[in-house]
Parts: sequence; structure tokens; C-alpha cells
Amino acid sequence: MQTFSIKTQERNQMLEITHIINEALEDYSGQDGFVIVYVPHTTAGVTINENADPDVVHDMLLTLEELVPHRRRGYRHAEGNSDSHVKASCFGFSDHILFQDGRLVLGTWQGVYFCEFDGPRTRNFHLQIHTQS
Amino acid sequence: MQTFSIKTQERNQMLEITHIINEALEDYSGQDGFVIVYVPHTTAGVTINENADPDVVHDMLLTLEELVPHRRRGYRHAEGNSDSHVKASCFGFSDHILFQDGRLVLGTWQGVYFCEFDGPRTRNFHLQIHTQS
Amino acid sequence: MQTFSIKTQERNQMLEITHIINEALEDYSGQDGFVIVYVPHTTAGVTINENADPDVVHDMLLTLEELVPHRRRGYRHAEGNSDSHVKASCFGFSDHILFQDGRLVLGTWQGVYFCEFDGPRTRNFHLQIHTQS
Repeated sequence: MQTFSIKTQERNQMLEITHIINEALEDYSGQDGFVIVYVPHTTAGVTINENADPDVVHDMLLTLEELVPHRRRGYRHAEGNSDSHVKASCFGFSDHILFQDGRLVLGTWQGVYFCEFDGPRTRNFHLQIHTQS
Repeated sequence: MQTFSIKTQERNQMLEITHIINEALEDYSGQDGFVIVYVPHTTAGVTINENADPDVVHDMLLTLEELVPHRRRGYRHAEGNSDSHVKASCFGFSDHILFQDGRLVLGTWQGVYFCEFDGPRTRNFHLQIHTQS
Repeated sequence: MQTFSIKTQERNQMLEITHIINEALEDYSGQDGFVIVYVPHTTAGVTINENADPDVVHDMLLTLEELVPHRRRGYRHAEGNSDSHVKASCFGFSDHILFQDGRLVLGTWQGVYFCEFDGPRTRNFHLQIHTQS
């Protein structure tokens, strides 16, 4: 298992980490398998989505903010980040991505994103690589 | 890794693929493990849900459409499918399903669905099968 | 694969199962890997989230209920639990969690939750443990 540290700059932010995962796979040329990306937080998650047009990320965060606004009548949690917990559980805290010959098998437009929902903060994520027997 | 091609007919559609996965497992009788279903797109995903009453799928797609409508004030992405990207990230792009003796360990009512959110299109999904050591 | 039975008490409830998973890992000291948590239902799922302040769970369920209310115009499914199916697909039916030396690698505030969306019921979940070669 390898752990990586990243810094986020916004309260809600999708930060691409595809290159970090591909670097971690550099020693796996000739091998197939899958890599688990795991986020050990409760107000940040991970997803896969388009990395070509940055407007997609803008629109995704806009939609999430309108669906799960920062403030809502009835919230009890004193830290004021209940929305962040919901957003993170909807996107999820882990993903597995296939690789072949040491390269991620991503679709043409796919990138892997660390999803910050209560930043800015310093955050971690783990990678665990499994080769196919 | 095996890749399968399917055609969707609607803009939003949940297409059951359980039988395709069970066929891919036919050579694994006597073995246990898990299969990864991976969707290499950014406006289509994968989920598990009820395959008995088709009204469930109707109601799920209705709910998603009302929560994340096709058009929304503030969207910047020019392709007009920002809603599709959000829906796909909420359901996710990959799933792992357990199998025993070469058969998926699904619940009584569970089926595996390819989830189209920007169709109709020709789409792909990958399967990667892992046996338990 | 091990199967566990739990009883839920509410229609919507997040029940922590972290201790059950750690117990299942007791024989894996000295080993690393990941455990798959799989929910074989269509109106219950699994997520990871904060286990320190119970108000977080309260606020998450409140948000889900407001986003996907029990009754909605246009629902066709006669069982009256279409909302439960949507909530379950958003959180997902399976998760994989890393372990090192036989202990879950959870973040400081993370717990694993069985998510009931159509209770109270008796429910099951499966664990499948994979060690790293």
C-alpha cells in the first residue's frame, strides 16, 4: 500500500490524480490487474469522470452544491459540514481501476479525481495494486 | 479482461447485463472469487438493483431526472450533457460482484445494470475475473 | 465468503458494522489485503462515513429523505419503496476496504455502515477477504 498526500484549494474541488496512479504502476509493465484507490476521509471521496473539458467538473460541482447545499434546516452536526458527508458518500470513498501492461485501462475521456467537499485541506489517499494470477 | 459492446436505445436507460456476466463465468465452475464490472465512459455507469418489476427501473430513472434535470441554469459544458456526468458519478463506473462455484452471488432480486445517461449510443464495458487464492 | 445477519429498527438507518469486519479479520494478523463488503439487497446498501458524532448520520439521512422522498408523483412501483431503491444505488451495494496486518486501514473518523432504506427488516451482508500476493 502506498499513501499520497495532496493539498486542496477550494471547499468543493475535483483534483485529478490519474498521473499519480500511472506513476505508481510504472514497475508493473507486462502485468495486468487492478488498483484500489482509497480515500481515508469522511468529507472527501473519489470518482472517475471527464478530464478533457474543465467545464464538466464545474457543472458537476454546481449540481452537487444545488442538490446538497452547505446549509440546510434541521442539520444537527455542529461542524457545519453535513453536506460534505453526504456528497462524499454519494461519490464513494474507493474505486478500483483496471490496468493492462502496467497502464490504467481508462476510457478515452476518463480521469480519476480526488473529490474535496470540505476544503481547503491537506488530504491523503491510498493505492493498493493487485496483479492478476 | 474481456470487453463487451452493447447498444442503448434511450437517453436514460438501465440495461440488464447479468446474463452476460454469468456467461463469462461459465469456465469458473468450482471456483470462488469476484468479478469487476468496469464502464470506460463518463456519461454511463453501472449499478445493481431489482430485476423483477420493471417499474422499479422506471421510478429510479424518473427520480434521477427530477433530481438532475437535463437543463440547469449555470451549466457551462457545451455538449449539454452535464446532467449525465453527475448521474454516472453518483451510480459509479465500476462494481465488484462475488461469485461462488462460477455463479454470481446476487441477492434474490438483484440484477446488474449498465446505466446509460446520454444515449442512445454504442457502449462498452469490461469484465475482469479474480479467483480467490 | 462469510455471511452475517443483522436486524434494522428504522425505515432509514445507518448501522455500524466496522467491529464485525475487524473480528472477521482476526485470523489475518501479519497479512495485508482488502475485504469486500457486499449487500445482497436492492433497498439497502453500504457506505463509509463518520462514526464519532451520531449527528452526522442523522443529517445524512435527513438529506437523503428530502432529496428522495418516500412518495413522489409518477412512481409506478406498487410496493411504495421506489425511493429506497434510488438511495441504495446512490450509496452502492459493495465496498472494498484495505487492511494491513489484519486491521482495517480506516481513516481516523471512518466507520463502515450498513445502510437500511426500507426497514425495519432482517438483512444480510457478505464479506470476502483477499490477501495480497
